[in-house]
Order: sequence, then structure tokens, then C-alpha cells
Amino acid sequence: MITEHALITIQAGRQADFEQEFPKAKAVISQANGFIDLQLHQGIESPDTYLLLIRWQTLEDHTVGFRQSALFGEWRAIIGPFFASPPVVDHFTQL
Amino acid sequence: MITEHALITIQAGRQADFEQEFPKAKAVISQANGFIDLQLHQGIESPDTYLLLIRWQTLEDHTVGFRQSALFGEWRAIIGPFFASPPVVDHFTQL
Repeated sequence: MITEHALITIQAGRQADFEQEFPKAKAVISQANGFIDLQLHQGIESPDTYLLLIRWQTLEDHTVGFRQSALFGEWRAIIGPFFASPPVVDHFTQL
Repeated sequence: MITEHALITIQAGRQADFEQEFPKAKAVISQANGFIDLQLHQGIESPDTYLLLIRWQTLEDHTVGFRQSALFGEWRAIIGPFFASPPVVDHFTQL
């Protein structure tokens, strides 16, 4: 199991819209092979910054399986329009 | 409840020492008022980068209570020597 760590900056004034649409995006990514679960957090110091933590069975379930699937297009079509800049994505292993 | 999000870069070649000492630091911070739990993650793309996620009852339990306590000095004395640069710390609220 690995954790995808994504920092997402949302366009000014569009936070409420992003949060309203997010459950639809979650319903899409939840169908991906290897998806375990997801947490969405909002920044306290920077409320336009969101932290997305997604646990996957393997790294490749995210970087290959999901990103090359039709689900990725659906996911990005829902939340991508709110992004102020490309998300910063890394992966971690829990110790 | 809030989550402290800290990105820590460890000096090259000192990861194993840091990981070995970390349980002692965890035993210190676990005594702080408002501490709930802690996760330590290691970067896959950047193995010298660690992600520390600490849940606190309130923001001030971390920023005031812990940081102004003697426990903070003990915590930093254990893990600080391994840091390559100051940790980057933010706080988030889970949605």
C-alpha cells in the first residue's frame, strides 16, 4: 500500500464550488483498480490549498492503471476546472 | 481536530539513523496535551523526504501548547540533528 500526496491550489473564490463537486470526483476515482480510500483536507493558513491523500494498493495502480484509464479523464473533467495550477503530486510509504 | 502536515528533509545517508531514533521522539510528542496520533511516511520519489502527519485536538495545542513546552525541546533534540533544512509545516482541516 502507498499513499498519493497531492497539493492542489484552487482558484480564488471557487473553493465552495470545488467542495460541492468533489464528491462526484470521489465517486469516479473510487472505481479505479487498487483504490483503497481518500481524504480531502483544506489548508488552515492557506484555505485555497487542499491536501488530497489517496491510498492505493500499489504505486502503479495510480501512476499507470488510473492515469491511463478513462476514469482519469472523468476525474479531471470534474475537478480540473477549479485548479489554479497543476497539482503537485508525490507518493509516500507509511513507516 | 486538525492535522499538522510537516515535510522533513533528512541529511543524505542519515535516513536509517533518523528512523531508528524516531520512536523516541514519538514517545515524547505523544505526551503533549491535545496530541491524538501520528503517522510517519517516507517519500518514494525522494527517499530523503519524510511526511509527518500529526493530529491534534486544536491548532493551538500544536502551535502554542506543544511549541512552548519543554517537550518541544526534547522532541527537537532527538530528531533535529538529522534535518537537512528546517521542516516545512502547515495545518489542515479534514473535510
